[in-house]
Amino acid sequence: MITRFAFKKQLQNLAQSSDKSTYLLAISGGADSMVLAYLFNELRDLGYEFQIAHINYQLRGKDSVSDQKVVEDFCKKNHIKFHLYEVSEIDNKPENSIQLWAREIRYQFFRKIQEQENLDFLVTAHHLNDQLETFIINLSKASGINGLSGIPANENNILRPLLNFSKEEIYHFAEENKIEFREDLSNKKSDYLRNKIRNEIVPKLSETNENFLENFAKSISYLNQTKDFVQKQIQEIETKLLISDKEYKILSKEKLALESDFVKFEIFKKHGFTQPEENEKIFLAETGSSFYSKEFKLTINRKELIFSNLNSKNTIYKEIILTNGLDLNQNRLNIDISKHINAPKDFIWQFDAEKLIFPLKLRTKKEGDIFYPVKFAGKKKVSKFFKDEKISVLEKEKIWILCDGEDQVLGIIPYRQDRRFQANNDTPKKVIVQWIEELPIL
Amino acid sequence: MITRFAFKKQLQNLAQSSDKSTYLLAISGGADSMVLAYLFNELRDLGYEFQIAHINYQLRGKDSVSDQKVVEDFCKKNHIKFHLYEVSEIDNKPENSIQLWAREIRYQFFRKIQEQENLDFLVTAHHLNDQLETFIINLSKASGINGLSGIPANENNILRPLLNFSKEEIYHFAEENKIEFREDLSNKKSDYLRNKIRNEIVPKLSETNENFLENFAKSISYLNQTKDFVQKQIQEIETKLLISDKEYKILSKEKLALESDFVKFEIFKKHGFTQPEENEKIFLAETGSSFYSKEFKLTINRKELIFSNLNSKNTIYKEIILTNGLDLNQNRLNIDISKHINAPKDFIWQFDAEKLIFPLKLRTKKEGDIFYPVKFAGKKKVSKFFKDEKISVLEKEKIWILCDGEDQVLGIIPYRQDRRFQANNDTPKKVIVQWIEELPIL
Repeated sequence: MITRFAFKKQLQNLAQSSDKSTYLLAISGGADSMVLAYLFNELRDLGYEFQIAHINYQLRGKDSVSDQKVVEDFCKKNHIKFHLYEVSEIDNKPENSIQLWAREIRYQFFRKIQEQENLDFLVTAHHLNDQLETFIINLSKASGINGLSGIPANENNILRPLLNFSKEEIYHFAEENKIEFREDLSNKKSDYLRNKIRNEIVPKLSETNENFLENFAKSISYLNQTKDFVQKQIQEIETKLLISDKEYKILSKEKLALESDFVKFEIFKKHGFTQPEENEKIFLAETGSSFYSKEFKLTINRKELIFSNLNSKNTIYKEIILTNGLDLNQNRLNIDISKHINAPKDFIWQFDAEKLIFPLKLRTKKEGDIFYPVKFAGKKKVSKFFKDEKISVLEKEKIWILCDGEDQVLGIIPYRQDRRFQANNDTPKKVIVQWIEELPIL
Repeated sequence: MITRFAFKKQLQNLAQSSDKSTYLLAISGGADSMVLAYLFNELRDLGYEFQIAHINYQLRGKDSVSDQKVVEDFCKKNHIKFHLYEVSEIDNKPENSIQLWAREIRYQFFRKIQEQENLDFLVTAHHLNDQLETFIINLSKASGINGLSGIPANENNILRPLLNFSKEEIYHFAEENKIEFREDLSNKKSDYLRNKIRNEIVPKLSETNENFLENFAKSISYLNQTKDFVQKQIQEIETKLLISDKEYKILSKEKLALESDFVKFEIFKKHGFTQPEENEKIFLAETGSSFYSKEFKLTINRKELIFSNLNSKNTIYKEIILTNGLDLNQNRLNIDISKHINAPKDFIWQFDAEKLIFPLKLRTKKEGDIFYPVKFAGKKKVSKFFKDEKISVLEKEKIWILCDGEDQVLGIIPYRQDRRFQANNDTPKKVIVQWIEELPIL
């Protein structure tokens, strides 16, 4: 049951600190977030310092105004510092993936206020039902213990102190304490999968057992402990494999070969190599071969695995294989390059699959690269393009070029695509290369 | 997709052996089990040896006869040795828990045939949908990674080679190969929870993502690997804590105290101590205190934890606290003693809660024990009762006596209950002490 005392204990637990921490609450005006604001306000006499941030997405006309008013009124009445962000035309809302767009806006606005006001923690009102929905979404996507151990209650200074309370408990608490709130109508529409789970699956699950949610919370807690244990053990095993950790991290390939597939997978995953099939190749590769993840270059050297951090200063020629080919039954192949490199979050290029030679890859520039830039008549040397765009020598080394299997340039990311391979509306089979940002749950 | 080749590979993987293993197939006549029988029959020319067992529960009249006929005909046609068990009146079917009763019958019959015919493995036709149903049932009961990593594909020489194939794939395979089978009508009725999950929840989950089942199978496989890793690591940690492993297993209490709660819990769980609250008491207990699980007596000795196996020959006085009391709002308290001791599987005693002093406990006999046996006029010394029942000196040491908080004898398990505390039909608040057997999934 939610009580002032239970909440305070939970919060102190998460902040791992005294009452001297400072908080920014993300408040939408819905029952869960208004209960969060109310509970913080109840703790004020104990010296808890907090401010409130609200975003008006202007997506639902009058309703958006009313949501804002509930939060603003609560702040005025209780003399709480209130930060508002009104989404304007400039924040060009995308046609699809409104969810991601909104999360991005939240993330940036909250972080800005937190920095500006020097507040230790961002606090969100996620609850046990959100946790169950996320669990089922991850189950439907093939997840390991990391995905199934749920939304973290404390992640990068984002706290979620209501995570162990059910939606029912929160509504009950709001009613008991006459807390004003607005029904969150936006939730009812925009996220198809989450809503299907919320409205059709969770009620059925709850019918199986009157303690379903409570038991689910226990399962999640146990999985979390297991996850932490596994991480700690993997770290210890890695330490035993470590030959050097100075300029490069060098692990014993010989010793790692003796570990189980699970340990190998976890060690590679820590360095950004998440494809089990790729990992098998590492052990078969010859001395001098290299592999790339988003963060590391891995070079094979006799009995050693040498991991060099790609974000460090030493520039090197890099190459990343993106895909081995297109299944002939597919009309569309989506490639998410966010696993490998950084690019603007709206980056998306479409290609005519039939004009491409596989595998596609990302690499840094090579002597003699040429391409046929869109919005340009003929062909152009890549080096000339860099010069015209006034890109510095150091910058050039870091720019990723998308190539096909015969090393032809498909485009310079994110500057310019090659017009020869571009898809148009009539292209039957498309390859879509895009950058999909993964943000914490807000 | 199910193919002869994929099945053979899966089977060899599970049996971890050549084609020389021998198998007993549990075949009900439903699509899944008839596909299993068909696949084994296809492997016969490779030297696979197998026999088939079927149970006719006589629960559904003509339908039961038809089920049996499908299996029997298949065996005759293909010259497969067929074992039949027809449930008779003597196998007194209980009013409730038909599921457990049927599982018990299966278990005993299959094991008997396996022994008699000297067959290496028992094979069942559990599939991916069974796996998902079990996962959700365990989720609703608060489970850790052991419960959530599902039905094992190989457990105590029971193999489940169809576990990675969905029900849909199995039906499709049956149709393609014109395999005769019977719709399993019994499933449609008797297990309320499983049927609710099967008919209402699984279809909704499958709608969230066309690859839901396939992705779920990947999640389970990953959880299984995590589970195995955790078990192995816990074993290694225990080895480091080990002071002696001769007559008793002695672990360093000092060193264990420094480990995480998770490690403590897992180490205690391995020895049958599964209650986290109890485990906390262990570290606070004085030298000389003891605790009991079903398998071990744990004695605290300064800096040591001494585990003595209760199933070994050295007899000792033993005591197990069953429950601390009865919640006043409950009219019925069920105590399952199967976690602690062995008793006949139909063991059940009912007591008048208002006549009991808590906590209830199980202990071995003490000098001076007396009780008021049912079907007997006065009181009787427990030692005299043992003598009359012709129980040997050695046997006596192993018999469990149920006592109340003032050490009054409530009964000698399973011989005789004390009539003073017995419940009758009008007893408003009852304490029910029973033995509930947990069997592998068959």
